[in-house]
Amino acid sequence: MTSLSENFTGSPYDSMSPVAQAAYRSQAAAADLAPLPRATKDDVLLAIADALEVRTSEIVEANQLDVAASRKAGTSEAVIDRLALTPERVRTIAADVRDVAALPDPVGEVVRGSTLPNGIDLRQVRVPLGVVGIIYEARPNVTVDAAALCLKSGNAVLLRGSSSAHQSNTALVRVLRDAVGGAGLPADAIQLVPGESRESVRELMRARGLVDVLIPRGGASLIRTVVEESTVPVIETGTGNCHVYVDAQADLDMAIDILINSKAQRPSVCNSAETLLVHQDIADAFLPRALDALAEAGVTVHGDRRVLAHAERSKAEVVEATAEDWETEYLSYDIAAAVVDSLDKAVEHIRLWSSGHTEAIVTTSQQAARRFTRLVDSTTVVVNASTRFTDGGQFGFGAEIGISTQKLHARGPMGLPELTSTKYIVTGDGHTRP
Amino acid sequence: MTSLSENFTGSPYDSMSPVAQAAYRSQAAAADLAPLPRATKDDVLLAIADALEVRTSEIVEANQLDVAASRKAGTSEAVIDRLALTPERVRTIAADVRDVAALPDPVGEVVRGSTLPNGIDLRQVRVPLGVVGIIYEARPNVTVDAAALCLKSGNAVLLRGSSSAHQSNTALVRVLRDAVGGAGLPADAIQLVPGESRESVRELMRARGLVDVLIPRGGASLIRTVVEESTVPVIETGTGNCHVYVDAQADLDMAIDILINSKAQRPSVCNSAETLLVHQDIADAFLPRALDALAEAGVTVHGDRRVLAHAERSKAEVVEATAEDWETEYLSYDIAAAVVDSLDKAVEHIRLWSSGHTEAIVTTSQQAARRFTRLVDSTTVVVNASTRFTDGGQFGFGAEIGISTQKLHARGPMGLPELTSTKYIVTGDGHTRP
Repeated sequence: MTSLSENFTGSPYDSMSPVAQAAYRSQAAAADLAPLPRATKDDVLLAIADALEVRTSEIVEANQLDVAASRKAGTSEAVIDRLALTPERVRTIAADVRDVAALPDPVGEVVRGSTLPNGIDLRQVRVPLGVVGIIYEARPNVTVDAAALCLKSGNAVLLRGSSSAHQSNTALVRVLRDAVGGAGLPADAIQLVPGESRESVRELMRARGLVDVLIPRGGASLIRTVVEESTVPVIETGTGNCHVYVDAQADLDMAIDILINSKAQRPSVCNSAETLLVHQDIADAFLPRALDALAEAGVTVHGDRRVLAHAERSKAEVVEATAEDWETEYLSYDIAAAVVDSLDKAVEHIRLWSSGHTEAIVTTSQQAARRFTRLVDSTTVVVNASTRFTDGGQFGFGAEIGISTQKLHARGPMGLPELTSTKYIVTGDGHTRP
Repeated sequence: MTSLSENFTGSPYDSMSPVAQAAYRSQAAAADLAPLPRATKDDVLLAIADALEVRTSEIVEANQLDVAASRKAGTSEAVIDRLALTPERVRTIAADVRDVAALPDPVGEVVRGSTLPNGIDLRQVRVPLGVVGIIYEARPNVTVDAAALCLKSGNAVLLRGSSSAHQSNTALVRVLRDAVGGAGLPADAIQLVPGESRESVRELMRARGLVDVLIPRGGASLIRTVVEESTVPVIETGTGNCHVYVDAQADLDMAIDILINSKAQRPSVCNSAETLLVHQDIADAFLPRALDALAEAGVTVHGDRRVLAHAERSKAEVVEATAEDWETEYLSYDIAAAVVDSLDKAVEHIRLWSSGHTEAIVTTSQQAARRFTRLVDSTTVVVNASTRFTDGGQFGFGAEIGISTQKLHARGPMGLPELTSTKYIVTGDGHTRP
């Protein structure tokens, strides 16, 4: 078959916007990628990893332009650290690509299958989604991660990174495309969205029919904009207002460990805890120790009245919580805290305020664990472990393209299967419907 | 726990639009439904079926008002036939509800599970979506079907039927709500969207965060509007520009049977065939017979030049096809037809024009069947059977809420599992991340 990628001539195509043209090329590339066997895709991924290592200096030099521009613009060193690529970091990125090559290929997996009463064979098999658009901020390693995961799952990817990483992303995508093209596959499997204007993002969001799914990765305002304006189906990722609930019966040492790990092991990420709920029956025993431990970890507590009452007997810094605290994703060394009358009141608090990411219960009661996991409706409900485990790597998915906080298509950490759709294959011997 | 359904007081709630208020009540009802065991839900479904039979005359009388108004408005008798409810039809609807009660409950199914290397137990379990909005046209049986499927899968449903069936839908929903309430469950599990204005539909489409998914069922323009304007995630259903491709090597009798069944067994539905593609090597042998058979079935053929060349030797009515014919979903006794140079050209034609619903190949070649099923990316790819098998009932799903033609979340006939999401349950013994 003529590769669809070679078919772009004629006026309707020429008169399209650059973004639409790119999306058409992605769609054609996706059609070429879909039927590829795993070995072919893995070979390309290994070629990409090699190319990243061979061309490290080209990548680091481009990155230095971004870093210099950001520094000149007064960007904080914390953000610049996320942007910066060193030879060491490029090696890590290449190693991650090799890890993706080692993962099983989701495409072709038979999800359901049966022989119908009339003798027809029915199979539901995984197929690529087609064209995946990713809109993301800051870190240029996402460029390579996303491209590798999409390629492995047979999808073409349209990448729209932040303008502060434009030189880095351009260099990275050049290396990736050269490797893909060098392997005889369509380089358009991996494209940067052309143009740096907001208008080009808007065009991407309106490219329904050309782009099969958009995944925004970044801050709340980016995600809200994409959700509001996109006609392309969106997978919402991200915000995590996660709760740790300490039940009436709980191992206090375990509760302290889980609380501190959930809050303070890495406060800047979406699976860190933002609110502590404590059953009233255990508050006297637990709160003084918890407040001290939080203080030692450098965490400021935003407490309700009943938490404040315990603060005087502790060395902790406790400020009074307002309604806003219950819905805040601090991403910092802060935590909201409240005492609740019962497990059901904890569930009610979570229903009202949680973003539906991850909620943990610490309990020795089997009944309480069962009730909490049944009633709490979040991507992940944790019993006696840290909220920080909600993560594709931790779940054994090998890699993740994001954590979906919506209910449709994918929920929780998204691995390779979440980058696929399915189709039914119906096989008969001339069957017709009576 | 206090039922959330009882908690609606206070000014923020009072100042909401009626649609938002209804959606809030749906959300509260959904929280009550989610943890229900199967037996409770099945009991309610059986109570609903009984109530429909007991209160048949109330339903039929309300329906007669709709029928009279439609007839007065000059609606065609074919459409009125779809609208009309007889005691016999109400009995069929009640029987369908009993069939839904007999289906397995998808909620609680463990989709994936493993013990992680660190000893944490990970399970991914099916949970209800929450609040499902259905916007549909004409047939009032959809009101009951959709409500039954949503209830069985633990979802609250917000129904928006067509104004021509308003009296019927109001009566049906009254009967359903009475049965649900009578069983001690929140009647708000089943609601009609309040208001008959277009504005109320728009509010429903903007109720992101309250409504978890919208499923439009109806004509192309309804579906396009919902897709364009909704911020609530949408599952696109419906349009079927389905193809039958007769390969170079094919059993001619089987090809005729499949073609006629696909096109003419019930032309008004989305899984009927709209285009015939014939390999050039078999055109001389197949087309004259095919054209005669289509003519006998009362089908008008819209042929390309090569098909027209065969028309003279047949009794068929063949008109010249234009580009428009390739993308038309006739839903009538019409079919577009073309001769193609190769299987790959057939695939190319399908990629260009198909709506991605169902495509069939008739072939005796294993290699051709394999290539066609691998390259064609539609919800359903059929080998040696009629396109008419793409159907939840035929697939053994017991019932279907629609046929998704999008790639996200659900693709093809949607049964009960497609009305669910999942959540992860993580169980440890005090695990923290190092």
